[in-house]
Amino acid sequence: MVKTPIMGNNFTIGYLGPPGTFSEQAALIVKNDQKRTDISLIPFPSIEDVFAAAAGGQADLAVVPLENSNEGAVNITMDNLIFGSNLFIRRQIALPIAQCLMTRPGMVHTDIIYSHSQSLAQCRQYLRKYYPGALLIPVSSNAEAARLISQGNGNEAAIGPKPAAELYGLHIKAENIQDHGGNVTTFAALSAGDADEPLPGGRTTIAFSTENEPGSLYKVLNIFSLWDINLTKILSRPMKGKPGEYAFYVDLEDYEAKDLQDALTMIGRKTDFYNYLGSYPKP
Amino acid sequence: MVKTPIMGNNFTIGYLGPPGTFSEQAALIVKNDQKRTDISLIPFPSIEDVFAAAAGGQADLAVVPLENSNEGAVNITMDNLIFGSNLFIRRQIALPIAQCLMTRPGMVHTDIIYSHSQSLAQCRQYLRKYYPGALLIPVSSNAEAARLISQGNGNEAAIGPKPAAELYGLHIKAENIQDHGGNVTTFAALSAGDADEPLPGGRTTIAFSTENEPGSLYKVLNIFSLWDINLTKILSRPMKGKPGEYAFYVDLEDYEAKDLQDALTMIGRKTDFYNYLGSYPKP
Repeated sequence: MVKTPIMGNNFTIGYLGPPGTFSEQAALIVKNDQKRTDISLIPFPSIEDVFAAAAGGQADLAVVPLENSNEGAVNITMDNLIFGSNLFIRRQIALPIAQCLMTRPGMVHTDIIYSHSQSLAQCRQYLRKYYPGALLIPVSSNAEAARLISQGNGNEAAIGPKPAAELYGLHIKAENIQDHGGNVTTFAALSAGDADEPLPGGRTTIAFSTENEPGSLYKVLNIFSLWDINLTKILSRPMKGKPGEYAFYVDLEDYEAKDLQDALTMIGRKTDFYNYLGSYPKP
Repeated sequence: MVKTPIMGNNFTIGYLGPPGTFSEQAALIVKNDQKRTDISLIPFPSIEDVFAAAAGGQADLAVVPLENSNEGAVNITMDNLIFGSNLFIRRQIALPIAQCLMTRPGMVHTDIIYSHSQSLAQCRQYLRKYYPGALLIPVSSNAEAARLISQGNGNEAAIGPKPAAELYGLHIKAENIQDHGGNVTTFAALSAGDADEPLPGGRTTIAFSTENEPGSLYKVLNIFSLWDINLTKILSRPMKGKPGEYAFYVDLEDYEAKDLQDALTMIGRKTDFYNYLGSYPKP
């Protein structure tokens, strides 16, 4: 997983910033597990920018949110991975997500609430119940929401992680406001370069689209069944500009390396579009 | 599809408002195809409110956006359909979506852009190219965005359908700003009451979750294969509070009514969670 750094001796991890995001927490976990100490964390303002940094050599690893256990896939990350990048998944990090409502100290009323759209969605029922009239404004990350309101002077609040409140000097009005228990976001650490070999006991992720004809998805899943490969996740994203057609993002586990190779060769043959997204340890 | 009206003689169609939304365009198509003339269209401020209106008897039919061909499923609609309502899909309406950028007449600069999050996502590349510094504010619908900026006085713009610009007296600065061609949104008309019988040549939608064990999705798809039923769409949504578990939303076509009944009986038997979402004509 540790690859040769691209720039000088310093190894850089780009993440969805600013400091204080859940992505930074995931990036810190990745940093602490590296076998070297000369590692810098660099925040980027958007998920697209994190992808571009890893593709362009400004970051050796890129940490982005991939999926939340209640709200589902992060569409921008999915589309960049499936259609838009030559990056590979090197690792996944599953973080329990506790959302807090935070304000500047002394603020009582809350008319406007900023956060990432995923975080707002994770707290939809809470917000509907306690702040039915508030204007909900999604911004690029929840730490950016905290940063924004720390500089504001109105009746604004942000939703995000506790460390963001501490970082930006905010008061925590309510904790654990997400609608559902078991709220976990999975982050992916990505990098350019050659794909890793499938690990024993690991996971491999691929994307493909099937021919637009009856039974085509079933035929592809049959390939995994034939080689006794366990499909543990299937998500679909629309093919851009092709209404009714989908690409599938699939996690595979419990395979023999040779079987996986043979199965993927067959997948490549039986699909219209196929993209190998990486092999990595199960999170 | 035409059911006995719940309130007096007037038949009501609820839709995601305010007037000027793409949902209203879809609701007008539904209205024009009814075999009666005493039909009122009623706007509701959110997708949840449209669902609640149909469930509670304030609307005989509810028209909500279901999926965009480029940005994917509308999560709130999906989750309400799969997990939260006893409504059935009576019809689907596929609308080509042309997004416009609109401002109050005479406005030159644009610092803040309002729209529905789906519309902002459909124009992501355009906005990144031409308005990289603008604050993007998702609101409950794109007609609501148009209404908001028509009452504002700043350098604000909205993204939405042309009729919304006309309705709220706005100037169209750019047309067809969506990133991808073939931009189609499918709307669903829903109602309470008894489920319709499967139509010959129609479509049936179901939702289910499989046991969380190897090959369980494949086993369910095998049922469709066994009865020669064509699966034309599969989307997944996370099961709330159960990380790693998914419910699948599936469209089925090209079936004999008796075969479908037998297959669905088997699906009910082989799944942890099963919900019949309706049979209706192909859009």
